[in-house]
Amino acid sequence: MTIVKTHLMVFTLGFALAFGSLAIAQTADPLPSWNDGKSKQSIMDFVAEVTKKGSPNFVPTSERIATFDNDGNLWAEQPMYSQLIFAADRVRALAPQHPEWKTEEPFASLLKGDVNAVLAGGMKSIGEILMASHAGMTTEEFEKIVTEWMASARHPVTKRPYTEMVYQPMLELLSYLRANNFKTFIVSGGGIEFMRPWTESVYGIPPEQIVGSSVKTEFMMKDGKPVLMRMPELDFVDDKEGKPVGINSHIGRRPIFASGNSDGDLQMMQYTAAGEGSSLMLYLHHTDAEREWAYDRNSSIGKLDKGLDEAQEKGWTIIDMKQDWKVIFPPEK
Amino acid sequence: MTIVKTHLMVFTLGFALAFGSLAIAQTADPLPSWNDGKSKQSIMDFVAEVTKKGSPNFVPTSERIATFDNDGNLWAEQPMYSQLIFAADRVRALAPQHPEWKTEEPFASLLKGDVNAVLAGGMKSIGEILMASHAGMTTEEFEKIVTEWMASARHPVTKRPYTEMVYQPMLELLSYLRANNFKTFIVSGGGIEFMRPWTESVYGIPPEQIVGSSVKTEFMMKDGKPVLMRMPELDFVDDKEGKPVGINSHIGRRPIFASGNSDGDLQMMQYTAAGEGSSLMLYLHHTDAEREWAYDRNSSIGKLDKGLDEAQEKGWTIIDMKQDWKVIFPPEK
Repeated sequence: MTIVKTHLMVFTLGFALAFGSLAIAQTADPLPSWNDGKSKQSIMDFVAEVTKKGSPNFVPTSERIATFDNDGNLWAEQPMYSQLIFAADRVRALAPQHPEWKTEEPFASLLKGDVNAVLAGGMKSIGEILMASHAGMTTEEFEKIVTEWMASARHPVTKRPYTEMVYQPMLELLSYLRANNFKTFIVSGGGIEFMRPWTESVYGIPPEQIVGSSVKTEFMMKDGKPVLMRMPELDFVDDKEGKPVGINSHIGRRPIFASGNSDGDLQMMQYTAAGEGSSLMLYLHHTDAEREWAYDRNSSIGKLDKGLDEAQEKGWTIIDMKQDWKVIFPPEK
Repeated sequence: MTIVKTHLMVFTLGFALAFGSLAIAQTADPLPSWNDGKSKQSIMDFVAEVTKKGSPNFVPTSERIATFDNDGNLWAEQPMYSQLIFAADRVRALAPQHPEWKTEEPFASLLKGDVNAVLAGGMKSIGEILMASHAGMTTEEFEKIVTEWMASARHPVTKRPYTEMVYQPMLELLSYLRANNFKTFIVSGGGIEFMRPWTESVYGIPPEQIVGSSVKTEFMMKDGKPVLMRMPELDFVDDKEGKPVGINSHIGRRPIFASGNSDGDLQMMQYTAAGEGSSLMLYLHHTDAEREWAYDRNSSIGKLDKGLDEAQEKGWTIIDMKQDWKVIFPPEK
């Protein structure tokens, strides 16, 4: 008996060893940083439903459009939008060429480090700082400035590069969708040219799949070379009602999958939900004060109030960061 | 001798039959509607140069951006831009709901069939007809209107559907570039939403790879459903200096291949030529009065004057339609 049993065990073990790796490869979890639960299940059910041939909700590959907000959705937006920190750094770098900023607001307050005084000036002050830091150079020069800043700047709290302040579970979600022939787009209130220099290497999303806010550009000859000059004038604000407009302008198709985290994404969600076929709306709820930040209805950054109500009312998927995510950020490089 | 020779011939023939189809498959001409000559050679040399690993001018696939003008470049633009014919048809269809058009210009002239009187009113008149025919409905309604028109309208001279007024050699060029991992875009002065409903089936170019002129759209709720309403206000004119601006906004990368046929494409050519690596600029010269139309420096439609001078001066590729193309249009369906 013992010998037979041992033989059987050896056989079973051998079988497991021989076929185990194959089984793992076939059933490998595409979302390993997501805890099992309603959020993960709703994503996997939706992908299965729209990609399975013969399914009543099958969607052809060319129509598998997925749109993602960026700030607070693919990367952290606390304690301050990274692009505003970039703008402040840029104003400080340019200050020697602008002696008038020592007395002119909002620059004087910013240079003294009084961020509250700047914020008290509202959108007018923020707009002036954005224009001073984001315009007046060619698109190529701006790309170089952003690339250099991203390579050297560090997050004020974690001291990590901003390219590592991205959410590991969302990187997995982007890959999972692309593996299922979705085309992934960013649709962000952030500057389109502030994102493009690094989104391909960080998220795998190329420049032509980025939708964002923009300043006007003008084609002109500079030293005999054709350039696009960035003008100090807002062209498009890709936020709230602007998101469906930006989606229509850049993509020209209604998404079937929309992912966001704030009231600024609500119209994108509504537009996606109004499509004829199956769709998935994902709201990321920042609930993890220990590993990230916890904020929603009363936050000045990434406010999620109306969106949370509508998501609950309509049964959209609400990701509970604390409960649903095993890890927040990728391992340090 | 005779027998041996015959055997040898049979053997040779058998060999040719057995391997001939393989050889044809391997060396099949990707541009069969192009006559051998300088234009075809410059295209094939360029593609070989940028796609061959180890070539000093190798370009990674993600940077292989090719932009094509549409009117007069991918499809015919004579005797009148198709979109203007669409606009006139649309005004006639809407006339019963607009009794005031019987006396109001430019509508009164258009409804009487006096196109010259409309054109004499210049851009103001044309703009009014475009707004009356292209705005005041949702994006979905407009898509349906365009789709129905494209299915039923016929070209005034050839009586063929507009989708068959496309250039067969250019269809082959688009496929050839895509087979070499180029991403093909349309960059047209025409309306972006006038093109998107049919460019994927006709050219293999999806909506998100169309850049064009646009009216403003507004997100709003209509009967409880979120829609994008087309407003009677120009948003962007994707022509001349606008083309590099549109390319930057939608694509965010400089093309390495640009194809056009008029002075409206010159800035796109200049912008493409100013890139750091290898690039190809293609100007299509309408020289075939028998099979298509012959026009250039003095044409009110598709004027090619400055562009022709600059192309000659800088050694860009000029396609001579009459000499370089074996056929113009695809066979009738």
